[in-house]
Amino acid sequence: MKILVLNGPNLNLLGEREPEIYGKDSFEELGRKIEGWAKELGMVVDIRQSNHEGDLVDAIQEARTWASGIVLNAGALTHSSYALRDVIAAVKIPVVEVHLSNVFAREEFRKRSIISPVCIGQISGFGHLSYHLALQALRELGLRRLTVV
Amino acid sequence: MKILVLNGPNLNLLGEREPEIYGKDSFEELGRKIEGWAKELGMVVDIRQSNHEGDLVDAIQEARTWASGIVLNAGALTHSSYALRDVIAAVKIPVVEVHLSNVFAREEFRKRSIISPVCIGQISGFGHLSYHLALQALRELGLRRLTVV
Amino acid sequence: MKILVLNGPNLNLLGEREPEIYGKDSFEELGRKIEGWAKELGMVVDIRQSNHEGDLVDAIQEARTWASGIVLNAGALTHSSYALRDVIAAVKIPVVEVHLSNVFAREEFRKRSIISPVCIGQISGFGHLSYHLALQALRELGLRRLTVV
Amino acid sequence: MKILVLNGPNLNLLGEREPEIYGKDSFEELGRKIEGWAKELGMVVDIRQSNHEGDLVDAIQEARTWASGIVLNAGALTHSSYALRDVIAAVKIPVVEVHLSNVFAREEFRKRSIISPVCIGQISGFGHLSYHLALQALRELGLRRLTVV
Amino acid sequence: MKILVLNGPNLNLLGEREPEIYGKDSFEELGRKIEGWAKELGMVVDIRQSNHEGDLVDAIQEARTWASGIVLNAGALTHSSYALRDVIAAVKIPVVEVHLSNVFAREEFRKRSIISPVCIGQISGFGHLSYHLALQALRELGLRRLTVV
Amino acid sequence: MKILVLNGPNLNLLGEREPEIYGKDSFEELGRKIEGWAKELGMVVDIRQSNHEGDLVDAIQEARTWASGIVLNAGALTHSSYALRDVIAAVKIPVVEVHLSNVFAREEFRKRSIISPVCIGQISGFGHLSYHLALQALRELGLRRLTVV
Amino acid sequence: MKILVLNGPNLNLLGEREPEIYGKDSFEELGRKIEGWAKELGMVVDIRQSNHEGDLVDAIQEARTWASGIVLNAGALTHSSYALRDVIAAVKIPVVEVHLSNVFAREEFRKRSIISPVCIGQISGFGHLSYHLALQALRELGLRRLTVV
Amino acid sequence: MKILVLNGPNLNLLGEREPEIYGKDSFEELGRKIEGWAKELGMVVDIRQSNHEGDLVDAIQEARTWASGIVLNAGALTHSSYALRDVIAAVKIPVVEVHLSNVFAREEFRKRSIISPVCIGQISGFGHLSYHLALQALRELGLRRLTVV
Amino acid sequence: MKILVLNGPNLNLLGEREPEIYGKDSFEELGRKIEGWAKELGMVVDIRQSNHEGDLVDAIQEARTWASGIVLNAGALTHSSYALRDVIAAVKIPVVEVHLSNVFAREEFRKRSIISPVCIGQISGFGHLSYHLALQALRELGLRRLTVV
Amino acid sequence: MKILVLNGPNLNLLGEREPEIYGKDSFEELGRKIEGWAKELGMVVDIRQSNHEGDLVDAIQEARTWASGIVLNAGALTHSSYALRDVIAAVKIPVVEVHLSNVFAREEFRKRSIISPVCIGQISGFGHLSYHLALQALRELGLRRLTVV
Amino acid sequence: MKILVLNGPNLNLLGEREPEIYGKDSFEELGRKIEGWAKELGMVVDIRQSNHEGDLVDAIQEARTWASGIVLNAGALTHSSYALRDVIAAVKIPVVEVHLSNVFAREEFRKRSIISPVCIGQISGFGHLSYHLALQALRELGLRRLTVV
Amino acid sequence: MKILVLNGPNLNLLGEREPEIYGKDSFEELGRKIEGWAKELGMVVDIRQSNHEGDLVDAIQEARTWASGIVLNAGALTHSSYALRDVIAAVKIPVVEVHLSNVFAREEFRKRSIISPVCIGQISGFGHLSYHLALQALRELGLRRLTVV
Repeated sequence: MKILVLNGPNLNLLGEREPEIYGKDSFEELGRKIEGWAKELGMVVDIRQSNHEGDLVDAIQEARTWASGIVLNAGALTHSSYALRDVIAAVKIPVVEVHLSNVFAREEFRKRSIISPVCIGQISGFGHLSYHLALQALRELGLRRLTVV
Repeated sequence: MKILVLNGPNLNLLGEREPEIYGKDSFEELGRKIEGWAKELGMVVDIRQSNHEGDLVDAIQEARTWASGIVLNAGALTHSSYALRDVIAAVKIPVVEVHLSNVFAREEFRKRSIISPVCIGQISGFGHLSYHLALQALRELGLRRLTVV
Repeated sequence: MKILVLNGPNLNLLGEREPEIYGKDSFEELGRKIEGWAKELGMVVDIRQSNHEGDLVDAIQEARTWASGIVLNAGALTHSSYALRDVIAAVKIPVVEVHLSNVFAREEFRKRSIISPVCIGQISGFGHLSYHLALQALRELGLRRLTVV
Repeated sequence: MKILVLNGPNLNLLGEREPEIYGKDSFEELGRKIEGWAKELGMVVDIRQSNHEGDLVDAIQEARTWASGIVLNAGALTHSSYALRDVIAAVKIPVVEVHLSNVFAREEFRKRSIISPVCIGQISGFGHLSYHLALQALRELGLRRLTVV
Repeated sequence: MKILVLNGPNLNLLGEREPEIYGKDSFEELGRKIEGWAKELGMVVDIRQSNHEGDLVDAIQEARTWASGIVLNAGALTHSSYALRDVIAAVKIPVVEVHLSNVFAREEFRKRSIISPVCIGQISGFGHLSYHLALQALRELGLRRLTVV
Repeated sequence: MKILVLNGPNLNLLGEREPEIYGKDSFEELGRKIEGWAKELGMVVDIRQSNHEGDLVDAIQEARTWASGIVLNAGALTHSSYALRDVIAAVKIPVVEVHLSNVFAREEFRKRSIISPVCIGQISGFGHLSYHLALQALRELGLRRLTVV
Repeated sequence: MKILVLNGPNLNLLGEREPEIYGKDSFEELGRKIEGWAKELGMVVDIRQSNHEGDLVDAIQEARTWASGIVLNAGALTHSSYALRDVIAAVKIPVVEVHLSNVFAREEFRKRSIISPVCIGQISGFGHLSYHLALQALRELGLRRLTVV
Repeated sequence: MKILVLNGPNLNLLGEREPEIYGKDSFEELGRKIEGWAKELGMVVDIRQSNHEGDLVDAIQEARTWASGIVLNAGALTHSSYALRDVIAAVKIPVVEVHLSNVFAREEFRKRSIISPVCIGQISGFGHLSYHLALQALRELGLRRLTVV
Repeated sequence: MKILVLNGPNLNLLGEREPEIYGKDSFEELGRKIEGWAKELGMVVDIRQSNHEGDLVDAIQEARTWASGIVLNAGALTHSSYALRDVIAAVKIPVVEVHLSNVFAREEFRKRSIISPVCIGQISGFGHLSYHLALQALRELGLRRLTVV
Repeated sequence: MKILVLNGPNLNLLGEREPEIYGKDSFEELGRKIEGWAKELGMVVDIRQSNHEGDLVDAIQEARTWASGIVLNAGALTHSSYALRDVIAAVKIPVVEVHLSNVFAREEFRKRSIISPVCIGQISGFGHLSYHLALQALRELGLRRLTVV
Repeated sequence: MKILVLNGPNLNLLGEREPEIYGKDSFEELGRKIEGWAKELGMVVDIRQSNHEGDLVDAIQEARTWASGIVLNAGALTHSSYALRDVIAAVKIPVVEVHLSNVFAREEFRKRSIISPVCIGQISGFGHLSYHLALQALRELGLRRLTVV
Repeated sequence: MKILVLNGPNLNLLGEREPEIYGKDSFEELGRKIEGWAKELGMVVDIRQSNHEGDLVDAIQEARTWASGIVLNAGALTHSSYALRDVIAAVKIPVVEVHLSNVFAREEFRKRSIISPVCIGQISGFGHLSYHLALQALRELGLRRLTVV
């Protein structure tokens, strides 16, 4: 079970950027945690980050040939990218939307996610743990098809 | 570690109500699953359901004396109840908002949650599994205080 | 053919409350009229009123086991209750929305009904007569399934 | 008791136009039904249809000299015609607004009726039956003046 | 100097329709007054009324061959007719928009005039006198081209 | 002179809930203060609190038989309950709306009160003192009918 | 018959300010024209201008003791001054709102007049002539009370 | 292959009306061009124009018995006519919406087309050529059913 | 304890202006009442009124050197003056916002107060009594610092 | 006559992505069709696709040195990219906006095109044929300058 | 080169008013700095402040006879004064809009400037330095006419 | 003191693109000017331009290791890029937002800047000079920390 863990703009600044919101661990440390969780769950993860919307679209397009699930933290593009929305709707792979912070407790513009309607579910507000829960969700979904939409 | 699992209007109709959206299992079957998951995680759960907003507010008020966490599926009250918002902000217990369906892929009014800004996080779209993930989140939070908001 | 005639907040004040809008007859007198009309139409009615949203939801849930139709005057909850909307969508029984007054000729907020999209039809503006017409509609629908939505 | 039954744009296509919404009977068949109901109620009806807003306004103006009530299905003009609103407000005859389908369960623009505030009441969602109920309402109103607005 | 005095829907009901707003004089009496005022001002008027938007558009199109000015009371079409707006912009003749009542002191929808931006000016609120002032304005404009837009 | 002092959701948590906004005194202590003030003003108060909208509506309905005034702090229901609005409009007793905090200096949704248009006046921002001022207002109104609305 | 002709901010710049919109004549020249027209109509005018909202309010308050009508060009304050609205509603004198330019053919904000609902009528778009028509309107109104609002 | 080429209000003024936007050729010249293009494509066209919304609705209703396609330039009715929308949805014939000018580069109200959702496609901004392209589109669609919606 | 009682536009017309809303007593009579109440409370009041926004700002600026509280009825400026908002936020003196009428029961624009968020509290709807309650509030606040915001 | 045919995000997934909307042919097959049509029209086309907004801007910038026209299907960027709008306005080459599907019959956000006001025209809803019509439009425009905007 | 440096409401409170936002220096100290900067740039400045909108309008009107540029900090009037907008558009002198604080990082209402569209440019967020930059901008503009708008 | 001067989409077209708005000098000529100004101010500048949002985000991320200030003209991305907003908030370097034209005097969408709230200040409308003023601002800020936000 291979999973693409895809991260959008500025997530590579983790640990450095507004640590009171996003935590003190670096993006590399988060990556190691994710790999550990994946291993426990019997999954293989490919973790990527880009500040370019086009790279994220490319990555999702390419993932349709090998991935059985995607964990997507689109960062600020969550709120503006119809191209991401379209590519998620276009590929057949389940995509779980994650956010480190509780986006509903912040600025008004962060409350609107353009990609939510085409993802299978959302997990937000649990810091690094959000990724762990997303992997668990995908694994459960992989073992038995979700009977409830 | 004692957890209140609180359910709002019409969740007692699970299995019967729009099964293509909410699944075929009854509310009792969901309850048994939740109890099983809780046991595995070393938690004790108190599962309740009411169609009355006031009952939900009462339950959260009372839970502040014994619960270390709340899993809340407020149902339709998610979109209209400022009283729920106020009681969540008033008590000190972490509350995880859950939804069975992907509320962002449905009617417009379901996209706005009045309680999201005062919960610590949201999990939606994974059917019964949403409750499982919420319990896991609370347990992790209980073991070590989340460093990332 | 058993029908639930369900009334929301403040309808028990009929005759006393703003009689220039709602008429001079008391709620009990309206009840007797409804029972008379039902009898003529060969129907049995169970008339209830509550100021509690939860009670109305409970009543509709319970009615799914015995009623073949519901006449619903949700009063002020017409404009705010997503829980009522959900329970109407959840049960299989046809629900006719009625209003004593022409709600479109009054305050702006009364023009928006949250429950209209899930009822089968609306009758408003005819005073007590609105209930009579609703009963006739349900009886016709009971005799032959409506071919036109 | 003479009643004008006035129909707006495209109602002459009944039976042919989107039959899953508007039913399979033709406009002529609906006309015959209406005449039958009127007869039973001791009423005389004049049934008209036009695709021209001006014709409908003319018809209502002219009806003020002979009709004791109007049943109006303004079709798409319901949502755009201030001229119809003005003529209804100008004449003294009670006008009942009817719709075959539940207009609140369809496109957003169909939820706003420009004429509702000046009609005495609305009946929508009961297919052909909507006209029957409207005739009954007018007859009851004719026999005794409605004490409740 | 020939002037078209064009009147929209329901103005033919003057005197009969809501006399507390529109006055007690009939449309014919208003017409005689307008002819009297025109005579005093050395103008010839052609007074028309229709409940059909298309007739008003036709009349303005045709007037471009003979009229040196138009006094237009578009009635309810003031608030909905882009076709009237387009024809006013298309012809070269100055059009003065008039209203009997103060449209800004009535329902919200009457505050928005679709045709105002393409007329040369507006006169509203002076009852029959609005037409007199409009004729005077056109005459002054005819004698010397307005130096101020 | 008997006064109903009615309190909505979560006011029973006073002293415990966000004390920087609502103060450190408990609801019971506030109650004792109110009773003291009432005594000084020669009034008898009945102080109630409920988290249920229906209970508040019931209480106001019942008060119409014995109370000469109502002091109402509807809490979060201030911003969502049309049922409260309707019952205030239905009973003949003057209702004074009070708030402990300055609701206009807080979240956007707290700026809109659904009940304000049907109360006789509002007092907000003075903490416990808001209740004292409300009692004084009702007493003055009781002694001589207010000549100014 | 004494008339206050009151002018708001920047009207003293007439002739100099955007002459393609407001004309080439100075405010003094406009004043002389107005005095000429008044004389012909048997009226006495007091023409004033101020850039201060408070001065305009003062002037209208004071005019209630001597003027039988007011011609008001409030300039930019038309779109923002509730104080002007209140004073017009407070005094008993008829106020005619005038504008030199067609305010509906310009920027969006100029389309909303705060004072229109409390004036008796509006005249806009006729340059200096707007004042002439306003004086004529007031004179007619003075001779015989307008039977039509 | 017979095609109805239907034109709305003011298109008969082509060549005369705002020629910098709509071109210098008259409506008759455009008609001759369209007939020429149709001939080349092996089509027969029936070209009509009316300033009456009702006429356009009538024409589309009638065309359902003989036309295999409709080219519709609804003019200003594009932005206001729900009756046109309904008749297009009611008939089975493919309708191509055309505009001479780029409606998106003009006034705000021209950006919203009420009929677009029920047409099969839109062509706008190419002057007379828009009609030529529309005929080509219908012919291609006639030869082989479009595989892409 | 010295208090500035500051009144905005048109309050000097009290007794004369819309007496059914604002009462029959003149501004001078209200002044005498306020002085009487102040005396009873051991306060000294300086009562001022101006129709000029700038005067009100000047008065509040100057009051910061001598007043221990301000009672402010800003009249129509309540709804438009950001300058008043800024000066209230700039000075350290507590300001109580008062209104004679229940502003929430009147025109829509009166429901929005620009100054509310920077005042300590609001009292509205009690006629002259509103000033009395405001003085009492300031006195209580002066005796002991309010523990509840 | 050289034409740039530029395609935005996800158009390379044609045939695979939601074929019921976008058709079964692959992007390569569409390319071959376009080349065939171009050949017939005596045109040379350069067909490009990118998921990167910056690439599309670069391509249009570069095209200003060699292309005599652009056919642009900006995909999801149609609805969000002001950079594309600016570059189209900056270059002198005519740009035709095309869409495979009828974007007005889909989600609300697809109805707003940011680039429409700066393109010369739009063609949408004809599947692959949309490109053919766009090429024809550009060729006609190349042969003789469009006399109608 | 003579420059008017004009300041609106409450800027005279500088140093005292919210010093964490507006700095600790008094308005007089700011004035001395501005005079120093002007001297270095070979300019003469006339620095004024008023809390009256009318005074600011008067000052700009008068400046048209002697000033070659205006630096305008309109304070709170920035967000509400159409009269200031009109006078800036009326005079020929370039006006630079300045703000001490970053108005876009504060309350929502401070983000909308009514005067921005008629000023030549804006400088905000640099504290006292904003005035220095504005003077430099005007001097550069004075030496050579800006070639870029 | 090293400064990043970062330019967004289409700024490389300067001199060629809409020269009446953006001036006739090329981007290279602007670059030379900026370098000259920097030299005079004792600064070193690194001038970059890209049409790719991701490149701009990358550049700002990288600049946090070497730059003491950023001058940012984000071009069209000013109005749509939350990713730019996030990276500006994430790095510690002061960012000055500049625009060549007065963005408030152009299309509506240009009035909303997504990045303004996280920049320290804005300078717009002075053509090339905007960059000069921004450099001066950063230098002053570098010499002494701004005491006023």
